[in-house]
Amino acid sequence: MKKYIAEMIGTMVLVLMGCGSAVIAGGAAEAVGSGVGTLGVAIAFGLSVVAMAYAIGGISGCHINPAITLGVLLAGRIKVNEAVLYMLFQVIGALLGSFILLSISSGMGLSGYGANSFAEGNLIPAFITETVFTFIFVLVVLGATSKKSPEGFGGLAIGLTLVLIHIVCIPITGTSVNPARSIGPALVGGGIALTQLWLFIVAPFIGAAISAIVWKYFESNEKAVK
Amino acid sequence: MKKYIAEMIGTMVLVLMGCGSAVIAGGAAEAVGSGVGTLGVAIAFGLSVVAMAYAIGGISGCHINPAITLGVLLAGRIKVNEAVLYMLFQVIGALLGSFILLSISSGMGLSGYGANSFAEGNLIPAFITETVFTFIFVLVVLGATSKKSPEGFGGLAIGLTLVLIHIVCIPITGTSVNPARSIGPALVGGGIALTQLWLFIVAPFIGAAISAIVWKYFESNEKAVK
Amino acid sequence: MKKYIAEMIGTMVLVLMGCGSAVIAGGAAEAVGSGVGTLGVAIAFGLSVVAMAYAIGGISGCHINPAITLGVLLAGRIKVNEAVLYMLFQVIGALLGSFILLSISSGMGLSGYGANSFAEGNLIPAFITETVFTFIFVLVVLGATSKKSPEGFGGLAIGLTLVLIHIVCIPITGTSVNPARSIGPALVGGGIALTQLWLFIVAPFIGAAISAIVWKYFESNEKAVK
Amino acid sequence: MKKYIAEMIGTMVLVLMGCGSAVIAGGAAEAVGSGVGTLGVAIAFGLSVVAMAYAIGGISGCHINPAITLGVLLAGRIKVNEAVLYMLFQVIGALLGSFILLSISSGMGLSGYGANSFAEGNLIPAFITETVFTFIFVLVVLGATSKKSPEGFGGLAIGLTLVLIHIVCIPITGTSVNPARSIGPALVGGGIALTQLWLFIVAPFIGAAISAIVWKYFESNEKAVK
Repeated sequence: MKKYIAEMIGTMVLVLMGCGSAVIAGGAAEAVGSGVGTLGVAIAFGLSVVAMAYAIGGISGCHINPAITLGVLLAGRIKVNEAVLYMLFQVIGALLGSFILLSISSGMGLSGYGANSFAEGNLIPAFITETVFTFIFVLVVLGATSKKSPEGFGGLAIGLTLVLIHIVCIPITGTSVNPARSIGPALVGGGIALTQLWLFIVAPFIGAAISAIVWKYFESNEKAVK
Repeated sequence: MKKYIAEMIGTMVLVLMGCGSAVIAGGAAEAVGSGVGTLGVAIAFGLSVVAMAYAIGGISGCHINPAITLGVLLAGRIKVNEAVLYMLFQVIGALLGSFILLSISSGMGLSGYGANSFAEGNLIPAFITETVFTFIFVLVVLGATSKKSPEGFGGLAIGLTLVLIHIVCIPITGTSVNPARSIGPALVGGGIALTQLWLFIVAPFIGAAISAIVWKYFESNEKAVK
Repeated sequence: MKKYIAEMIGTMVLVLMGCGSAVIAGGAAEAVGSGVGTLGVAIAFGLSVVAMAYAIGGISGCHINPAITLGVLLAGRIKVNEAVLYMLFQVIGALLGSFILLSISSGMGLSGYGANSFAEGNLIPAFITETVFTFIFVLVVLGATSKKSPEGFGGLAIGLTLVLIHIVCIPITGTSVNPARSIGPALVGGGIALTQLWLFIVAPFIGAAISAIVWKYFESNEKAVK
Repeated sequence: MKKYIAEMIGTMVLVLMGCGSAVIAGGAAEAVGSGVGTLGVAIAFGLSVVAMAYAIGGISGCHINPAITLGVLLAGRIKVNEAVLYMLFQVIGALLGSFILLSISSGMGLSGYGANSFAEGNLIPAFITETVFTFIFVLVVLGATSKKSPEGFGGLAIGLTLVLIHIVCIPITGTSVNPARSIGPALVGGGIALTQLWLFIVAPFIGAAISAIVWKYFESNEKAVK
């Protein structure tokens, strides 16, 4: 049970702090010059992962992202029933994060939930982006937590990769690469984020599946590795 | 005695450098576009912790925050009388940091102390924020310094978490999550920061207590941990 | 074969994310104030290396840069035929990255490829800069991955060095220090980047060769090292 | 001899890249909004140290700063004649860095050397700041490289501390905490930087001496350390 509670808390923190940086620190995802800017929001999402990786990494492995859990499942590092419960508690955590954020932002008279969406006509770029960027993200997760990678650095590498992905992807979709992170604000806030939610579930899962295939290839024959 | 001196110096550095970034590097907490901006102040606070963690971590554990000391006490890792002295020297260090900052800023004709405060009517959001964010912060401290976490990374993880918390929280309260960091500038600067000081003592302590409870649950039964 | 595929994917990610941050996150290399700014682009390039270092470092060593491969070759850590294939797959990866970026940016109506170029009359400063900065970069690579350096930190140190180099060098050439990173956008985008491409191949290779000479001197007589 | 060459190259890189970020990346130390801003310059100086720490740390220990060498000398970790040569080669490296920067910036029609100076009437705040901040910096160096601190993290902790110090100190003096870094641009550029140079030699040395005293106290009686 502990690992599910850990996943719930971790995803809560990711959504509260990541989306919170966009909502509270000032229309940051739309325009630089107020609040912490796109760069600040990107850093907030990534550092949420760094924070949680070293806080709960020893409890649950700190997936806090159903796409990562899918990649880890397909890479054969977790069981199916466990993976389903991981995803369930990640979504509960994301909803919790959105509600706590709402309790703070509404009290301050702020609007917005940090939901993911894409502009009219940008469906194709949004789909490509979320698929490719989740592929990159989950490949880093599988690589950095494998035996080939130095111990302890996984949390930093994965969190800093999420900073990187947000820097490039915020102008396109606000950056999901994480279905739970999209479901929380979409369910709590509604609107267009709910209509477009399918993309932020389907594309990240496709990207994560490709990562698992590529990583299995990399691991397939140890002796070929330098 | 050494560890108390270390806590005093560490908290002095946190207040001098963190608050100093806000005061000296240009009205940064209020508006981006001058000085280093909200992001620069957030980075300054977090890197103060990184700096001190690797400088005095081996001497005192580098709490430099009464809320962390409370969390560590409730987690059973420090004795009561030691904890009280830790807190006392942290407050002395914070006062020292505020006085050194004042000696620099007043010489330059600058005003402000980097004190924590919240806007009229924002009491509830401020209280929720300081409680929840201190919970997150102290949970990272307890997790990242536990045996479950890779050795050596604690200072980086905890410092970067403080960057994250400041990014989101500066627009709400300026970010305390640390009673000593609030007491220093409030006592030296006075005014509204002194009237509102109680919140920056009570809320962080509540958050830290919740962290200790959650962490004790995570540690309660080692065999359930993956 | 795996290590060549890894180099291809790694260089693809570097070009897609690094150049993508400049193209998508808003004319960032030209003017601060829109998008993530020069600092955000610098961070994107550097974190691409951090991401890939911990993802594929265990597979190929994560050169993702022909200048690094040359330096490693001259330092005697790789064979010639292997080095040639490394460089080939790096260029293929860079082209792949440029094409994926084009598929996203063109769908969004954005122009630009993140190519390297220098202003009319800046040939000499551009040549000096690319040579000296590649010397610094490859020296860090050779040093941070040697036995003299603590294990595991190489990826972080090298990636953060690339952030540093971009901060200084973006106003001069956009920053190459990596022939593959220049070839990809130049071939896909054409124009002046293609005419000036020679500099971004010759200068980085000269810089890398100097690094190898200096590093071999440092390693030449172990007993003189403290 | 190798370690002196390493110190020369390391200090060259620090001055070229740190001062270069201010000169080339756009009047950054004076006003945010052009180039990479104060935050970008602060990051450039700090990452120069990270880069060199992992590149030449195994050769010379990577002081690249006479104040650090003084602190290390007073802490009894280096011999006097070695320390003098360290300082000499650091100054030569700083001059080299300033000349390389000049060769790039003059070719681009840019002015400025990234020299340290303080405003008329700010002598006292400048002296206090350089003394206290060098004390903090060298304390981190002595602590993070001691046996009490986890291995390998020193370079990151020290470099990030220099980022922190620059964030706060750039508006006051441009930030020295390193006599060699001040001597290079002052000798090459002349002017007011040369008149005020004494402060950037005296104050850092005083700060470093205090660090050594404090650190010796911390190390004086191992059994009192927790």
